[in-house]
Amino acid sequence: MTNQVAKITVLSGDYIGPEIMKAGLAVLKAVSQDQFHYQIDEQPFGGAGIDQFGVPLPDETLSSAKQSDAVLLAAIGGPKWDDAPNRPEKGLLQIRQELNLFANIRPTSISAAMQRYSPIKQVEPVNFVIVRELTSGIYFGKPREIDDTHAIDTMRYTVDEIRRVARVAFEMAMKRKRHVTMVDKANVLATSNLWRRVVAEVAADFPEVHYDTSYVDAAAMKIISAPEQFDVILTENMFGDILSDEAAEITGSLGTIPSMSRGSDGPALYEPIHGSAPDIAGKGIANPLSMINSVAMMLTHTFDRSDLADQISQSVDAVIDSGTVTPDLGGNATTNQVTNAIIQQIYERR
Amino acid sequence: MTNQVAKITVLSGDYIGPEIMKAGLAVLKAVSQDQFHYQIDEQPFGGAGIDQFGVPLPDETLSSAKQSDAVLLAAIGGPKWDDAPNRPEKGLLQIRQELNLFANIRPTSISAAMQRYSPIKQVEPVNFVIVRELTSGIYFGKPREIDDTHAIDTMRYTVDEIRRVARVAFEMAMKRKRHVTMVDKANVLATSNLWRRVVAEVAADFPEVHYDTSYVDAAAMKIISAPEQFDVILTENMFGDILSDEAAEITGSLGTIPSMSRGSDGPALYEPIHGSAPDIAGKGIANPLSMINSVAMMLTHTFDRSDLADQISQSVDAVIDSGTVTPDLGGNATTNQVTNAIIQQIYERR
Ligand SMILES: CC(C)[C@H](C(=O)O)[C@@H](O)C(=O)O
Ligand SMILES: CC(C)[C@H](C(=O)O)[C@@H](O)C(=O)O
Repeated sequence: MTNQVAKITVLSGDYIGPEIMKAGLAVLKAVSQDQFHYQIDEQPFGGAGIDQFGVPLPDETLSSAKQSDAVLLAAIGGPKWDDAPNRPEKGLLQIRQELNLFANIRPTSISAAMQRYSPIKQVEPVNFVIVRELTSGIYFGKPREIDDTHAIDTMRYTVDEIRRVARVAFEMAMKRKRHVTMVDKANVLATSNLWRRVVAEVAADFPEVHYDTSYVDAAAMKIISAPEQFDVILTENMFGDILSDEAAEITGSLGTIPSMSRGSDGPALYEPIHGSAPDIAGKGIANPLSMINSVAMMLTHTFDRSDLADQISQSVDAVIDSGTVTPDLGGNATTNQVTNAIIQQIYERR
Repeated sequence: MTNQVAKITVLSGDYIGPEIMKAGLAVLKAVSQDQFHYQIDEQPFGGAGIDQFGVPLPDETLSSAKQSDAVLLAAIGGPKWDDAPNRPEKGLLQIRQELNLFANIRPTSISAAMQRYSPIKQVEPVNFVIVRELTSGIYFGKPREIDDTHAIDTMRYTVDEIRRVARVAFEMAMKRKRHVTMVDKANVLATSNLWRRVVAEVAADFPEVHYDTSYVDAAAMKIISAPEQFDVILTENMFGDILSDEAAEITGSLGTIPSMSRGSDGPALYEPIHGSAPDIAGKGIANPLSMINSVAMMLTHTFDRSDLADQISQSVDAVIDSGTVTPDLGGNATTNQVTNAIIQQIYERR
């Protein structure tokens, strides 16, 4: 991919979305100079899609994404569309399905430098990744009904759906501390029992990886009491939604964490884990780090340019250390000041 | 109920179960003297049920529970029955259904004295209650299938099931800070949309109660970042399982928290929130406080004897303050030493 011009679909979305996307793209430009060639295609998505085309994932947005090498998303949703018949979040669920983004990958780390932001008292350095199944389970299972007397949702998994995401987790563990913890509720759910069966088979193909399991309630406790014990957490869609946000919170720095959603081939999607923060939109104080780190994650995973990603990460660390941070991290810098400081660092590191 | 002899079914269960039950019953005896008359009926349950009768909830155990005024349960399960066709936990699910215990109530508090046990850095005093629906949802919904290619679980709720547990939450809020937060995933689940509809109706009957909602992923974060903002959390079965264990963990003192499961009439069940701790069974060091606090909760809620419950609570607080605590709370006292210290305090307070 390095010899071609990379195609990136850019979805700025709503509220602080455009503000942080601007920051992310400025950093991408700075780090790319003469090093990486790309073109971007900006498209409306989420509330912006509803406003322009009446739907959160307009056709043109989807076809741009499908033809891209990677999708960068900022953040969507907010009070403006709370009563819309078609909610912005629907677009998120749709694009996951359309691009077959079955694995959502969320790094959770607390480095020595970031410990002061953690709400947890005594943390050893924490560094784990959650691999969440993203295109099946109770999010998409049928029947799904609601009437005057009752409602039903269906958690459904096939062997193939479990196997492909399990392989992602074990492959990832091979490049890390070789430890996979599968989180389920096998003492209650039939689907969890299928997960246990299939994941045990996948684990057998990775004898170097230590494999264990945890019930989801116990995992919710351990993420607080002993997060340093995790390496790769593998789990189904709904549990992953809850645990990955819990895990982000223990770092105390939501505003810094990127994420990746990928399939087997086709473009992956990179986005901050936080939302569109309507309360601070337009004030110029949104933390751009999660977006900037998403750009770095894209450079590593889609474009195999961890050299450029490292330049970004080191610059981000230096800027955090220098105290140039937005109010959510206790500083008083603006989005632009943080972004410019990072770009400055990138130039100095050349 | 105060003039009759109270009937209490006692289920000691497995591993540390009998050790902590002994402690709980000793405290009940001490506080009751001339004040409260009861008889206990001990029955096998969980692994003990499997060992004696081949099933986790033997008929006789169930019929004793049904005829009782209250059920005290210690803890069940453990490695001994991991490969049993009938798991101890099945007994728990069965007794909840048989006694129609649709509301599980879990106090979560961090008092000034307990703050040092919390893994959270800066806590304002925390005091909230989780009301978890306990007899429906994905735990019991049909179809529930598993075969060679796929598996299915069904999350199903009726209007009546939601309404009755919602009323419990609002009634409870009326005696507290008059604030109910309903936790759901209404941006994804049909059942959550039914919950929103029904709970809004119930809320209308309680105009003095401030009512708001939170998505489950956001709630998992807020339990860590701002737990002091909650008063009563109302939620469905699966979410309640995860959030109530997470909430317990932030207190740092799992070993102290009691719980109550109740229906509309019939006996309620009181139990510690922790498990049977096979690793420390038989060593005499299990923390009896959660069991002892469950006895106090029973005296308050089933027998309307908060006078006696207060004697227990004050004694427990005094003993914690004095440092006579088990290893899980950083002390080196035995189960018996803690229990005797509490009984001593009860006598001194007479
Ligand atoms: C917005 C919502 C549908 C979404 C989800 O639950 O997947 C979000 O919480 C996330 O985790 O990306
Ligand atoms: C043992 C298990 C079935 C049970 C549950 O999930 O309800 C337990 O975790 C609990 O919370 O009481």
